[in-house]
Amino acid sequence: MTIQTLTIVGVGLLGGSLGLAARQRGLARRVLGVGRHLDVLDYARQLGAIDEGFLNLQDAVRPAEVIVFCTPVDQIARQALAAAEACAPGTLLTDVGSTKADIVRAVEGRLPTGVAFVGSHPLAGSEKRGPEHANPRLFERRLTVVTQTPRTDPAALERTRTLWEGLGARVRVMSPDEHDRALALTSHLPHLLAAALAGIVPPELYDLTAAGFRDTTRVAAGDPALWTAIFAHNRTAVLDNLDLLCARLAEFRRAVESGDTAALDVLLTQAKKVRDALGS
Amino acid sequence: MTIQTLTIVGVGLLGGSLGLAARQRGLARRVLGVGRHLDVLDYARQLGAIDEGFLNLQDAVRPAEVIVFCTPVDQIARQALAAAEACAPGTLLTDVGSTKADIVRAVEGRLPTGVAFVGSHPLAGSEKRGPEHANPRLFERRLTVVTQTPRTDPAALERTRTLWEGLGARVRVMSPDEHDRALALTSHLPHLLAAALAGIVPPELYDLTAAGFRDTTRVAAGDPALWTAIFAHNRTAVLDNLDLLCARLAEFRRAVESGDTAALDVLLTQAKKVRDALGS
Repeated sequence: MTIQTLTIVGVGLLGGSLGLAARQRGLARRVLGVGRHLDVLDYARQLGAIDEGFLNLQDAVRPAEVIVFCTPVDQIARQALAAAEACAPGTLLTDVGSTKADIVRAVEGRLPTGVAFVGSHPLAGSEKRGPEHANPRLFERRLTVVTQTPRTDPAALERTRTLWEGLGARVRVMSPDEHDRALALTSHLPHLLAAALAGIVPPELYDLTAAGFRDTTRVAAGDPALWTAIFAHNRTAVLDNLDLLCARLAEFRRAVESGDTAALDVLLTQAKKVRDALGS
Repeated sequence: MTIQTLTIVGVGLLGGSLGLAARQRGLARRVLGVGRHLDVLDYARQLGAIDEGFLNLQDAVRPAEVIVFCTPVDQIARQALAAAEACAPGTLLTDVGSTKADIVRAVEGRLPTGVAFVGSHPLAGSEKRGPEHANPRLFERRLTVVTQTPRTDPAALERTRTLWEGLGARVRVMSPDEHDRALALTSHLPHLLAAALAGIVPPELYDLTAAGFRDTTRVAAGDPALWTAIFAHNRTAVLDNLDLLCARLAEFRRAVESGDTAALDVLLTQAKKVRDALGS
C-alpha cells in the first residue's frame, strides 16, 4: 500500500505520530495536516509529521486518498461528514477515536457513493497531548481495533487493516458495540477510577505519595474535555462496568472490615494473577 | 554516622537495597543479613548487599549497633521483641513497614532498658520482591517517614533520622496514627482499587488493555500475603478512605448518568490538577 495523499485531521500526539510513521515508513507520498492553529501545523511540519498544513478541512481532504480523523470523539462524525462532501469517490475515511458506536452510527449510511468510513481505535497514546509528544513508533506492535458492521464495505475494511498494519500495528476486527463494551472496562473505567482517587487527595498529602500512587493515577492527567466526551459517548457501558467495580469494592470492604484474611487473600491473589498475565 | 555492625532482618527488595546502599555509602562497616533461606542469603552476599547471612535472628543481632526489620508488617513486632532480648544496650531498632501504629504499639514499653525502637517507613519499593530487584539508589531523594510518640527517645529518633539521611532519603517525622491515616489514602487504597479493577477483567479482554490500564493496575502484582497483613493492620483508616472514594465514584456516576458534562468536567479538572502537581 502506497498512499498518494494521506490527510490527517488533528495533528496532536496521535495525528503527529501517524504522520511521522506514515512518512518514515514510506506508506504515504504526501501527508497533509488539518488543524486550528497555524503554529501547531508549522511545528508538525518542522517535526516531519506532515508535508503541508491546512486550516480548512475541505481544502485538505480534496486531494486525499485516505483521511484519518485524530480529533476528540465528539468532533469526528461531524468532520467526517463535512470531509465526505469534498473528497473524491474512492476515498477511505477512518479515525482513531476511543469510542466507536456513536461515531460509526452517526456516519454510516450518510456518505456519498464511493466514499467509505471504517472506524478504528489504536490502543496507543497517553495522558500527554500535542505533536511535541509524537512518536513514529507509537503504533508498533500495538493492537488497533478496526470496526465492522453489516454496512461496512469489505474492501474498505481491508484497506483500513492494511493501513494499520503498514504503521506497524496488529489489527483486530470487532463490532463498534463490542469495542465500546470492552474499552469501557479496560480504558474508560480506569480513567474514571484514577480521577476519583487523585481527586480526593488533599495537598498536604502530596508529599506522601510514592510510585504506586503515581502509577495508579497517571491517566488522570489526561485532558478533561477529551474524557468528558468519551464518557458521554460510552455512558451505558461505563456505568455497567462502574457498578461491577463497586460490587467488587464491596467484597473487598467486607473482607477488610470482618478481618477475613482468607477472603482478602483470594481477592488479591486473583487480581495478581490477572496483572501478572498482562506483563509490564 | 558510621555503624560498626548493621543487621538487616529480611533481605528482599527493601532489605537488599538497604544493605547495598549502606555498604556502598560507607554507612556501615559490616552488614549482617537474617533470612529463612540460605540460598537467598548467599545470593544477597554475592550481590554485595550483606557481608554475612544468618538463619538465626538472635545470633545476627547480638553484635549489632543498628537493626532494621525489612519483613512483612505482621512479623516486625514479634521479631523486634525477640531481637531486643539478645542485643546489647544502646542498640537502635527500626523497620521499613508500610503500617506503623500496630507495630509501634506492640513494641513500645516492652523493650529492655537501653534498647530503643523507632518506627520508619521509606516510601520506596515496588510490586517486585526479592534481592534480585535490590537497588542501592532506592532511597535516594525518597521520603522516609520516621514516627514519634510521647515515649520515643529523642536521641534514638535522631539516630534514625541520621540513618535514613545517610542512605540518601528525606525524612519527615509523624505520629504512627497520622502516618497510617495518610498512607491508607496514598498507598493502601490505591492497592485495593488496582486489585479490584484487575480482578474484574476476564481473560478475553487482556489483549484490549493498553498502557493506561497497565499503569492503573501495576501495584496489583504485589504479594497478596504482604498486602493482606497491611490491610489488617490499617483496617479503620483503609475503610474510611474507601468510603470517601466510593462517595466520589457516586458523584462521577451521577454526572455520567445524567449527562452532566459540566459536573464531569469539574471532577476531571480537579483530578488533573492534583495529578499534574505530583509530576511524573
